[in-house]
Amino acid sequence: MDLLPILLMLLVLYVLAVTGSTIFERFGVPGLIGQILVGIIVANIIWDGSAFEGILSEGSLLGIIGVELPVNGSSGSESYQFLKIIAEIGAIFLLFSVGLETRACDLKSVGKPALVVAILGVVFPFLLGLTLFFYDGNMVHAMYMAAAMVATSVGVTAKVLVDLRKTNTKEARIILGAAVIDDVLGMIVLAMIAGTGAAGGFGEIIGVIMITVVFVLSVFVFCDKCVPRLDGWYCDRCESKPSTKSKFQMDKLMLAIGLCLFMSFISQAIGLAAIIGAFLAGMMLADYAHSWDLKPKVDAITTFFLPLFFLNVGMHVQASSLMSSTVLLLSLYVIIVAIVTKYLGCYVGARISDKTIEKDSAKIIGIGMVPRAEVGIIIAAIGFTGGFLTSEMNTVIILMSVVTTVIAPPLLKRAFRKKYPEDSPEGSCST
Amino acid sequence: MDLLPILLMLLVLYVLAVTGSTIFERFGVPGLIGQILVGIIVANIIWDGSAFEGILSEGSLLGIIGVELPVNGSSGSESYQFLKIIAEIGAIFLLFSVGLETRACDLKSVGKPALVVAILGVVFPFLLGLTLFFYDGNMVHAMYMAAAMVATSVGVTAKVLVDLRKTNTKEARIILGAAVIDDVLGMIVLAMIAGTGAAGGFGEIIGVIMITVVFVLSVFVFCDKCVPRLDGWYCDRCESKPSTKSKFQMDKLMLAIGLCLFMSFISQAIGLAAIIGAFLAGMMLADYAHSWDLKPKVDAITTFFLPLFFLNVGMHVQASSLMSSTVLLLSLYVIIVAIVTKYLGCYVGARISDKTIEKDSAKIIGIGMVPRAEVGIIIAAIGFTGGFLTSEMNTVIILMSVVTTVIAPPLLKRAFRKKYPEDSPEGSCST
Repeated sequence: MDLLPILLMLLVLYVLAVTGSTIFERFGVPGLIGQILVGIIVANIIWDGSAFEGILSEGSLLGIIGVELPVNGSSGSESYQFLKIIAEIGAIFLLFSVGLETRACDLKSVGKPALVVAILGVVFPFLLGLTLFFYDGNMVHAMYMAAAMVATSVGVTAKVLVDLRKTNTKEARIILGAAVIDDVLGMIVLAMIAGTGAAGGFGEIIGVIMITVVFVLSVFVFCDKCVPRLDGWYCDRCESKPSTKSKFQMDKLMLAIGLCLFMSFISQAIGLAAIIGAFLAGMMLADYAHSWDLKPKVDAITTFFLPLFFLNVGMHVQASSLMSSTVLLLSLYVIIVAIVTKYLGCYVGARISDKTIEKDSAKIIGIGMVPRAEVGIIIAAIGFTGGFLTSEMNTVIILMSVVTTVIAPPLLKRAFRKKYPEDSPEGSCST
Repeated sequence: MDLLPILLMLLVLYVLAVTGSTIFERFGVPGLIGQILVGIIVANIIWDGSAFEGILSEGSLLGIIGVELPVNGSSGSESYQFLKIIAEIGAIFLLFSVGLETRACDLKSVGKPALVVAILGVVFPFLLGLTLFFYDGNMVHAMYMAAAMVATSVGVTAKVLVDLRKTNTKEARIILGAAVIDDVLGMIVLAMIAGTGAAGGFGEIIGVIMITVVFVLSVFVFCDKCVPRLDGWYCDRCESKPSTKSKFQMDKLMLAIGLCLFMSFISQAIGLAAIIGAFLAGMMLADYAHSWDLKPKVDAITTFFLPLFFLNVGMHVQASSLMSSTVLLLSLYVIIVAIVTKYLGCYVGARISDKTIEKDSAKIIGIGMVPRAEVGIIIAAIGFTGGFLTSEMNTVIILMSVVTTVIAPPLLKRAFRKKYPEDSPEGSCST
């Protein structure tokens, strides 16, 4: 892997992603949709005129800059491998940044509604996802499809919340809390599916629950006990020397990055998504994010990585496989079920768990939980490489993930404006 | 390439690098030396007791976390490939950040001394480097060794200048200007060596000079003409809407990153080091770095990447090959020649080119140009993979690169303290 092709790839994709988001933001649409669409375009438009020949074609812009996507079990070119990791690090820093704005006590206060929202938001899509059994009569296929429909990726919603400066609302807290629980439930669902074919399924499920509960609880203990001491240690050492302040702020950023990497690693290692760990790491430092001046610095790091995350989501749409009407119809069904069940499950969950949650708030929560983004894609990849899903089903899930990701931000923005009309909308410069 | 091993590698190396730099800074030594030493340690210390068996051993800490260094033409494991690119991006952002503090007019004002410093700083090491002909009587070996001794890496000096807050001194400007010219001269030397064995050597040299002159001149034109317009365009669009300010600052950071990637790519593509392009990109935006609030944001990005850069420099020292006394003696000779000739060349260059430069300033300039870091390692790699250097010579050059890199920062710090005694030294928290 040489520096030159990597620089070329980063340059071209970064410039395209920024251009895409700038154009969309000008018209009031969240920039990440522009970045996802740029991803679809660079992976599918082919220069020699014979469009839609598939994402692996050397004629696509991605092929020209040396990026080959993984197809049928291959792992893609080195450039793609690098891009994929960079994209995932982008999502990690985004959730870390959101975590920095979320105090542990905020999340505790919405514990009950978050739990109910997460449970119903998992049960509804899974049960209706099982109707896919009638598509080809294969229960394993149906279960993996349903599992992919269960997953929620909070990355996209988090970006919209950040852009709208609404991370401190009650709705945002419920969404974030539910996303953490949702990820745990998603793991349990996957373990259950795997358990149906193998022995020890029940023990595995209990194990998963135990590990994640210990993991999440330890975060809350750490928030209460360790971070204040750490802050006190910094203060003792530096308060008498204001001239060295900037230097130790730098060290605080390094400490924060180290904690973020640690929690992401642990989270990924025990089977949760890495972004959940990053979010919890941010929460650990939330009380001190302001005095340590962490937020703008983490945001700067995110700015470098994040456009490539959304671009990577878009790159996985294989336009050529949509030429078949069966796939198109299946996609349509899966997309509608995925959106409606998740929305209804979370809406109902929010309304029945807490009487003080109004309809407008429940709508926001429902929409915020809809995007599947990379989590759906990852589950589909697990099913596909394990032979539990056909190639068409893999494409359908990817398409479902992308569509739910693209559709949610504008709806979320509108729902927030309806609920908080008094705030000045953060439009683009020219509106 | 999966996320989990990459996260593990980043976590372990990042925590070790930060620990190393924190310990060294506590004792007043620049943190980057701690990071380089950590690199040497993780690559060489082997857990099973049989130390110094070579860097590829699975018993070393690097092996445990899945990082395999390239040996004898292999390209190393995926984790190492990723680490290498991340390290290079770290150096790119560091030089971009230094460039943001360097105005084009500042560099123009030191044009003559910078040119003379660069030329003598190249001629002295190259001519004395050729004495290596007497080591094994092979002129090609001697020429490649000499070429590797010519290279200057301004990354290390730049980090020390940043830490001491001395990027705005005349000495710093001469060093930075000379580093740009030095890189061009280094390319010419490499082209000349390649030309001695092939036809068209002279034409190639002229081509190299033309391309780089056009490249560097276009930067100055861009500074004068384009950046003010860009700034005006931002102002026109946003001045009437102060509420949208923060959003457009974000876009400015994206624009700056895009420019940095573009210049780094062009620079690398025409044969210069990518960091030279990044430095020039920073210079382009120097006049607006403050009003666009770029500096702290770019520094935050650098904080994430840079520790891995210095760690990667250290990782290339192969302690096992130093067991031979011939290699040890050769290393000693090369290191002494590399340090003395570069220092004297630049010292004399500074003194004869500008009568107003005092001895103390000339010393700073001489020391600042000594580190070879990754540039020496890269040239050695070119010579080694091309068959122009033996394996021992490759190791000797790497060792020379690391020693010159480790030795310069403390000397530079002392020289600056002698020259500017009135400033409060920026020591660690506890001194």
